Amino acid sequence: MDFREILKDMVQRVDGGKAAVLMGYDGIAIDEYKKEGEVTDIQLMGIEYSTVLKEMKHTSEILESGEVAEVSVVTGNGMVVARAVSDDYFVMIALALDGNLGKARYLMKTAAPKLKELL
Amino acid sequence: MDFREILKDMVQRVDGGKAAVLMGYDGIAIDEYKKEGEVTDIQLMGIEYSTVLKEMKHTSEILESGEVAEVSVVTGNGMVVARAVSDDYFVMIALALDGNLGKARYLMKTAAPKLKELL
Repeated sequence: MDFREILKDMVQRVDGGKAAVLMGYDGIAIDEYKKEGEVTDIQLMGIEYSTVLKEMKHTSEILESGEVAEVSVVTGNGMVVARAVSDDYFVMIALALDGNLGKARYLMKTAAPKLKELL
Repeated sequence: MDFREILKDMVQRVDGGKAAVLMGYDGIAIDEYKKEGEVTDIQLMGIEYSTVLKEMKHTSEILESGEVAEVSVVTGNGMVVARAVSDDYFVMIALALDGNLGKARYLMKTAAPKLKELL
């Protein structure tokens, strides 16, 4: 499987999955997948969240609480799960508000090492 | 129940619960509860995470994705769940790495309106 196939598999297997992106912490995307008809700008989301993730890495260093492995965010109209793939890259999925966050977390956990292998 | 009793109830009912804090986004804590013998500096964690949460609120505004309701973070040696209580305050719980994140999310969701009522 290539990057896009792994992202597509994740998005399609989780209830409420909308789109996913593999991105560098510098905000540059390697690949993305969006469900047909989906309007979510997953690249823009990735770019904005990359800033938050960098802030979080910094916070985790200060607190000596180890590497940031995963971040989930629930907002007024959706959910986002991001997971570290390597020191330089992370994968992120956007879900509908009624999506399955637990399943998304599980799929991200299994996809991350596969993505890392391809990097 | 007062603030501390609500925090204590949350920490005690979740597997791996270590400590919880009710804090302003300005980093000033209203109250906290720590399990006996627990060394986690929950105030320091709250202060550091308040910065991240503010950044996340800002990100959510840019993305027009609504208010940030909840954030979960998994790091190398623990988990943190933070939930908005009001525009000015949030509640945060620290869990062991093998703690029950789903239960913590559920308890936070039910505790937040109770805490808000007392504010």
